[in-house]
Amino acid sequence: MAKELTSRSENYSQWYNDLVVKADLAENSAVRGCMVIKPYGYAIWEKMQAELDRMFKETGHVNAYFPLFIPKSFLSKEADHVEGFAKECAVVTHYRLKNSPDGKGVVVDPDAKLEEELIVRPTSETIIWNTYKNWIQSYRDLPILCNQWANVVRWEMRTRLFLRTAEFLWQEGHTAHATMVEAMEETERMINVYADFAENFMAVPVIKGAKSANERFAGALETYTIEALMQDGKALQSGTSHFLGQNFAKAFDVRFATKEGKEDFVWATSWGVSTRLLGALIMAHSDDNGLVLPPKLAPYQVVIVPIYRSEEQLATIDAKVAEVVAKLKARGISVKYDNSDNKKPGWKFAEYELKGVPVRLALGPRDLENGTVEVARRDTLTKEVAQLENIDQYVADLLDEIQKNIYQKAFDFRTANTTKVDSYDEFKEVLKNKGGFVLAHWDGSSETEQRIKEETKATIRCLPFDGEMEEGTCIYSGKPSNRRVLFALAY
Amino acid sequence: MAKELTSRSENYSQWYNDLVVKADLAENSAVRGCMVIKPYGYAIWEKMQAELDRMFKETGHVNAYFPLFIPKSFLSKEADHVEGFAKECAVVTHYRLKNSPDGKGVVVDPDAKLEEELIVRPTSETIIWNTYKNWIQSYRDLPILCNQWANVVRWEMRTRLFLRTAEFLWQEGHTAHATMVEAMEETERMINVYADFAENFMAVPVIKGAKSANERFAGALETYTIEALMQDGKALQSGTSHFLGQNFAKAFDVRFATKEGKEDFVWATSWGVSTRLLGALIMAHSDDNGLVLPPKLAPYQVVIVPIYRSEEQLATIDAKVAEVVAKLKARGISVKYDNSDNKKPGWKFAEYELKGVPVRLALGPRDLENGTVEVARRDTLTKEVAQLENIDQYVADLLDEIQKNIYQKAFDFRTANTTKVDSYDEFKEVLKNKGGFVLAHWDGSSETEQRIKEETKATIRCLPFDGEMEEGTCIYSGKPSNRRVLFALAY
Repeated sequence: MAKELTSRSENYSQWYNDLVVKADLAENSAVRGCMVIKPYGYAIWEKMQAELDRMFKETGHVNAYFPLFIPKSFLSKEADHVEGFAKECAVVTHYRLKNSPDGKGVVVDPDAKLEEELIVRPTSETIIWNTYKNWIQSYRDLPILCNQWANVVRWEMRTRLFLRTAEFLWQEGHTAHATMVEAMEETERMINVYADFAENFMAVPVIKGAKSANERFAGALETYTIEALMQDGKALQSGTSHFLGQNFAKAFDVRFATKEGKEDFVWATSWGVSTRLLGALIMAHSDDNGLVLPPKLAPYQVVIVPIYRSEEQLATIDAKVAEVVAKLKARGISVKYDNSDNKKPGWKFAEYELKGVPVRLALGPRDLENGTVEVARRDTLTKEVAQLENIDQYVADLLDEIQKNIYQKAFDFRTANTTKVDSYDEFKEVLKNKGGFVLAHWDGSSETEQRIKEETKATIRCLPFDGEMEEGTCIYSGKPSNRRVLFALAY
Repeated sequence: MAKELTSRSENYSQWYNDLVVKADLAENSAVRGCMVIKPYGYAIWEKMQAELDRMFKETGHVNAYFPLFIPKSFLSKEADHVEGFAKECAVVTHYRLKNSPDGKGVVVDPDAKLEEELIVRPTSETIIWNTYKNWIQSYRDLPILCNQWANVVRWEMRTRLFLRTAEFLWQEGHTAHATMVEAMEETERMINVYADFAENFMAVPVIKGAKSANERFAGALETYTIEALMQDGKALQSGTSHFLGQNFAKAFDVRFATKEGKEDFVWATSWGVSTRLLGALIMAHSDDNGLVLPPKLAPYQVVIVPIYRSEEQLATIDAKVAEVVAKLKARGISVKYDNSDNKKPGWKFAEYELKGVPVRLALGPRDLENGTVEVARRDTLTKEVAQLENIDQYVADLLDEIQKNIYQKAFDFRTANTTKVDSYDEFKEVLKNKGGFVLAHWDGSSETEQRIKEETKATIRCLPFDGEMEEGTCIYSGKPSNRRVLFALAY
């Protein structure tokens, strides 16, 4: 291989870090905890954005943009929210630098201190509800269905590329409704949109469910989540949708005249996914050779590598490839032809495997004579010889097949790594030796949840929507329980 | 009218502010100088982004993302750059808040002071060149052609929605090249892309040219600009492309092995346009009735309003409109059907005029009988009756016609408001009584430029690329000059 990766079995965490950097997805920057998203990584994010944005618009949402900064006092207005977000944030205290008296560089100008400090948004509920106050007088102004694509900052102490960074990119939807029912429907609609996106575009199966009270968003009455299982048996929370009740409307005094001529506080939701999805995508599918990308999100779906010895051979191949490229593009398939002459085919093969390109075509003089082409699949690492005629149909079908196969593989992995346990000993044994999702009875108390977390580091990922009602007893307290919940170690 | 606008003749500045707010484009936020971009305004920005992004990619660029924060010391590394940008910026000094000792709200935690302050990026040359240092070893790593869509912050004291705000959205291209010639070609390529976009999408004619030394970007050896003329006779700088020479490569020690086996510093460009373009769009075309949007950037190009007295009539119109909408959409025309029953047609007409929807169709029972529809053009405020059959072709042609007409109108206005002057008295007289672009001879010295600015507030907008060489004498100093330059009062 051109670039060595640590293997997953050797050190999963190191494998992930190596992969992110060597596949040119992202790297750490000079600013602690902030990442640079490199062009290849950003191209995947753009594909994600495009699909999500389309799905948001199809469900009636519009985009808007709200300020980066939040006055410090806003954070305090919702009691739970401030507990959750005020503690680790970037604080702007001054608005000017000046030349250093010693002539070396610049220093903060003490005369340019802000009257009230500004917080770089960790999430935008407060600034947005302060704005919505002016937009809403009557039920006729509702619903408001806004989304924002933005950067946010949370001063995390331990960061990892994509999974947990001080600055990250995300979208945050913030909706305002006249009734509780509408807001709850919206909360559910958007977790379904996220699940649809995760499964049908990222090829990552997810469990939809509700968070326990302990794990809810700070300020929410209910948090819905999609939970994905990574190859190391840990869960990754991949998207959340919050029913905020009237908490933010009350904090910012947002009232409206109802259809019935009364006055009420507005009902709210918020929901978001972030560049963390790139972490999920990488960890769900990739292998010791590098990335494995689902065709629907791959920056290019097909790479073509010429095999030649002479300039004449290359010229002949170039001409044939031009036809193939045109046919593939006509079907909406993105393709890169790499005929650069300073790398050997073997190096290119390894490089595009590392980068997870779903399909590789290799064409040599013999292929031209025979009207064939070598087709390599990234997901299975298998090769076949196909006919050049109708190669476009062949590749289109293959891309569909790969998209399905990647999903199925992740689905089967999850099935094999989801365990029902009925005792605390069994629970601890599975966590220790097998990992994965663990379905167990829980008595519903925050205290039990907290103790289990302290003793095992496992958290309740969610109360699955499709979980069956089933009588049982809590694995920890022995108290009665009427359903199993989903536990796991998590990122 | 539903919402009163100040007229342009009465108070142009107030007209602009009224329009931005009443057409639901943007509003001021609770954070000084930061705006909220409302959904209708953001929808225009999204259309701009989509076209520009396509043009950037067609010219070989890729997107990436770099950190929001810049270590304070980075700003000082390029001497001119720090002078230009360090003075008015948002400075992050702390990374945590804590509960206030008096129990009221939160305060900055003095124990959480950063070792080195972070600046919220006013522009990203420094953090990007610090990153490029690790990406570039050899000429084979060049060129690097990255663009970033991002928010930036400049602590402006006097702000105006879109035109000058503390936070704004923009794109910034940052390219790295092996030779001076390539970098200069890139600088020119991108100003041409901007001019193409301004003229063919925004329908705003622009003058391309080079900035004088005084007006260059801080750190650039050459700044190219596109300058547009607003209806009040003031110029608006609408996009810039900078040839940065080797300044940033030297500041961040970015060297590469050349093809010839030597070592050299890398050559750089940067280029950007921002949400300021929305200000240009509004001021170039709009009138006392509201926005006038070019069809290519209108969030919806056609609005359809039903005229009816009874529910039965509305039902019949609804059915007919569904056909019309389908035909228009099949042609890629975006259309909104407003059959809301709580507003009268007159109110709707005024509202969509205010919002600049290029074409309005009104359909009543008589129209259905006759197979006709009333078509109103926003640009000319004229109405015609058209046949419902083939209305899609009619509207498609009309949208093209409107796009051209808006451009031509702005072009004619600029022609009428561009004056050649040959004396300083004439110069001052034109600035005072007529405004607009003024073409005059200048001796090329910064001193003369500075004096003219102090005495008249007029600045050199650019040395136009297509200006003819022409012998003359500087209007201020009387010294010899071989070309006219473009002066104006400017935003």
